[in-house]
Amino acid sequence: MSAPRFAPVTPRTVAALRAIVGAEHVVTAGEDLDRYGHDESEDLFVPAEVAVRAGTTAEVAAVLALASREHHAVTPRAAGTGLSGGAIPVFGGIVLSVERMDRVLSIDEDDLVAVVQPGVVTERLQQQVEAKGLYYPPDPASRGSCTIGGNVAENAGGPHCVKYGLTKDYVLSLEAVLADGRVLRTGGRMRKDVAGYDLTHLLVGSEGTLAVVTEATLRLIPLPRHRRLVFAPFHDLDAAARAIPALSKARVTPAALELMERSALRAALDHLGRTIPHGDAEAVVLVEVDGHDEAAVDADLVRVGEVLASVGSPDPVLADTPAKAADLWRIRRCIGEAVKKIASYVECDTAVPPSKVPDLLRGVREVAARFRIRQISYGHAGDGNLHVNVLTDDPDPVRRETRLRPAIEAIFAVATSLGGTITGEHGVGCVASRYLPMCRDANAIAAMRAVKDALDPAGILNPGKVFFDLPFDTIPRRPRARPAPGGAKSP
Amino acid sequence: MSAPRFAPVTPRTVAALRAIVGAEHVVTAGEDLDRYGHDESEDLFVPAEVAVRAGTTAEVAAVLALASREHHAVTPRAAGTGLSGGAIPVFGGIVLSVERMDRVLSIDEDDLVAVVQPGVVTERLQQQVEAKGLYYPPDPASRGSCTIGGNVAENAGGPHCVKYGLTKDYVLSLEAVLADGRVLRTGGRMRKDVAGYDLTHLLVGSEGTLAVVTEATLRLIPLPRHRRLVFAPFHDLDAAARAIPALSKARVTPAALELMERSALRAALDHLGRTIPHGDAEAVVLVEVDGHDEAAVDADLVRVGEVLASVGSPDPVLADTPAKAADLWRIRRCIGEAVKKIASYVECDTAVPPSKVPDLLRGVREVAARFRIRQISYGHAGDGNLHVNVLTDDPDPVRRETRLRPAIEAIFAVATSLGGTITGEHGVGCVASRYLPMCRDANAIAAMRAVKDALDPAGILNPGKVFFDLPFDTIPRRPRARPAPGGAKSP
Repeated sequence: MSAPRFAPVTPRTVAALRAIVGAEHVVTAGEDLDRYGHDESEDLFVPAEVAVRAGTTAEVAAVLALASREHHAVTPRAAGTGLSGGAIPVFGGIVLSVERMDRVLSIDEDDLVAVVQPGVVTERLQQQVEAKGLYYPPDPASRGSCTIGGNVAENAGGPHCVKYGLTKDYVLSLEAVLADGRVLRTGGRMRKDVAGYDLTHLLVGSEGTLAVVTEATLRLIPLPRHRRLVFAPFHDLDAAARAIPALSKARVTPAALELMERSALRAALDHLGRTIPHGDAEAVVLVEVDGHDEAAVDADLVRVGEVLASVGSPDPVLADTPAKAADLWRIRRCIGEAVKKIASYVECDTAVPPSKVPDLLRGVREVAARFRIRQISYGHAGDGNLHVNVLTDDPDPVRRETRLRPAIEAIFAVATSLGGTITGEHGVGCVASRYLPMCRDANAIAAMRAVKDALDPAGILNPGKVFFDLPFDTIPRRPRARPAPGGAKSP
Repeated sequence: MSAPRFAPVTPRTVAALRAIVGAEHVVTAGEDLDRYGHDESEDLFVPAEVAVRAGTTAEVAAVLALASREHHAVTPRAAGTGLSGGAIPVFGGIVLSVERMDRVLSIDEDDLVAVVQPGVVTERLQQQVEAKGLYYPPDPASRGSCTIGGNVAENAGGPHCVKYGLTKDYVLSLEAVLADGRVLRTGGRMRKDVAGYDLTHLLVGSEGTLAVVTEATLRLIPLPRHRRLVFAPFHDLDAAARAIPALSKARVTPAALELMERSALRAALDHLGRTIPHGDAEAVVLVEVDGHDEAAVDADLVRVGEVLASVGSPDPVLADTPAKAADLWRIRRCIGEAVKKIASYVECDTAVPPSKVPDLLRGVREVAARFRIRQISYGHAGDGNLHVNVLTDDPDPVRRETRLRPAIEAIFAVATSLGGTITGEHGVGCVASRYLPMCRDANAIAAMRAVKDALDPAGILNPGKVFFDLPFDTIPRRPRARPAPGGAKSP
């Protein structure tokens, strides 16, 4: 397939964009523009020609109508915290940011629904609904900085998906703007509504390639009043991995079930300058249980402790205060940042059926040995989603992807041979599009392509993402302006 | 829009179909063909030209490839228990039945996944997984006869959706055949998998207009070990309706929350030839709570009782044995059949945000008074889904729809003015396509149409459904062969 071509952004385009959103919200140069050229994946940096901060749905529609008429590439952007390059303007053109659309429009305590704009920071929404005794579960590690728009675009996950599901399980309907500027609403405020095709869930996870989301109606649930977190160290990784199917067999539904290899835990502790008991364990499993009834939660906790002991954890420890639990979560959530600090890397966002986690971890170690690579694995083991970070000392993101490709392919081959996928929660973006055919058949990809062509016939919306139209190694990147990563020193 | 035209089925077509599935699975005449001409909605009967019972995915693919080449309309069909005419071959052509594909292929107790063919009866799957301590919650009233293929096509609901969600919330991936015979698989066995567009949820609820589902991979959950059912009679309907938001405010999540008007309960009891205490109540609310911890369930039960009393139920009664609970459910589940026995009717499958149920019921009564119609309302009030049956003495389904149209429109206007929809769980099919624009905007419908055209460019798959291509009153029906309904006698 040949790469699509777009019209260059001209001074006339910029003037038209200024007329739509106001001159102060159109960025054409300098550091302010640079921040629209990357996300939190890899170190890829591709400058936009212009960035536009839309303030309303009407402005989003007008920008898209203009881009459609003049055939400019448009890369929608929320907070830019994604991990698959979804917000990187790999064809240049216009970055269309919704960061100013950051209002929680309503929280309805009768129908348990929140209506939010796409620029609302996930954690801010969570805090607001929790103050009312309600819960919005999807919580990617970046929840303090990511926003709902990006979460919807990528169908973001997080530790609590294992019990509560992904972003898509909480999106009741969307307001969105199609590539040509037409605004549509995909549904209402009800869980039960089967009037026509489920456009809501077609758009969730479509990575900004089908429409730009301008409002989301989200389902809330009652906040579980009681939570308990167990920290279970293991002498070996295999035993830790066996905890996953064992808990499933015991019919326990943990609220979170995380696994960290020794190297992941070490990276996090070094990053924080901390020590903790069992900080040198070969592997650690975190299990959270929650619920509305304290006795029931405690009963679950007892069963969790029994299962963890039965698969060989020498000393499962209960975080007996909320502060201790929060502290353990802080360690878990910083691993991504910590790994970034110690080395350049390519991240494989594998997911497999949960019972296959032991096989996945074994396979990844074999690949690492075969290709002589260092890797750090950790993640949401309870739903089979493990982030395998392949480390390297090469600071150039494209060169390292090319060099490491055989190892990456081997890791994805392990995952897909176990019935798994090449991305559990990060999205395909531009970093994984080459690998999509490893987990989706040609007819499925052709059907996706047909849907894309139907809704965005000119292909202006987030080109170069999901589909393998623009091989990673041909992305016309530039060195990133921000400080380079610190090299490949050991943790 | 002009209705699409299809090639007539010729003896050559029939011979080709026989070569694909075997002569004994091709039906061309008589009563055996007639049963493929209707479903359980209305009394519409449109004979197919030929019905084909495919036994494998390859056979489904071959039939579709043939139909595509020769431009025959194809109406996919599972059990034919639908309530929106989805399985009625309104353009004649080929009925493609998957009833022979009725195997549960696997139940995986480690990953909590079942893989089934589309002809598996829902209740049979439920019984098989329950025997292993697992639960597949979607349970339409017809679960004893409907099958997973139809449930997936219509995104079927049922009483337990209020806590557990709809069919779509349990479909992890599908094998499906596109209109031209290409087979695709939409994903794997994991809940977390964001590789490309969510074709799974595009197909779920697409009513057989985008593809024919040949296999479904379903998520299971641990079976709640404890259930309690409360029967709450009310002196007036308003008070009963107020129980819905009151329970939500109390942060109780019932496993089921049903409401029946007096007329619905009377119809069911007459149908069964039964009497029960409070059988003459103005309205009845059924509330089920469930869970894994008996004490927690009992605590929920106490709160439910308090809330029901607080909104005015004089005497909420606990069904204190499983047999009594099953008996109440039997009464509830037979209402559809019971109403069918007493009169011809048009069913409005309204759903509104749950807090609006009192307004919906009030609005429906106003419409009934204004248009001097009799109606019977009941349904899954906990998620705002109320089936409003407008009774009539006209046995002709098309004539009665035409006559009642102003009242139907008024009922849907009430629902949509409250933020509701024209179909909560039955689907649009051919009975509600006229009303789709009342709850979906023109751009959303155009986007659905674009998706349809992209995946089925010739428009052979289930034509006349979802979209308003074939007005109900122009469907070239025939009187139904089976016994006519019994007239409009009072319950």
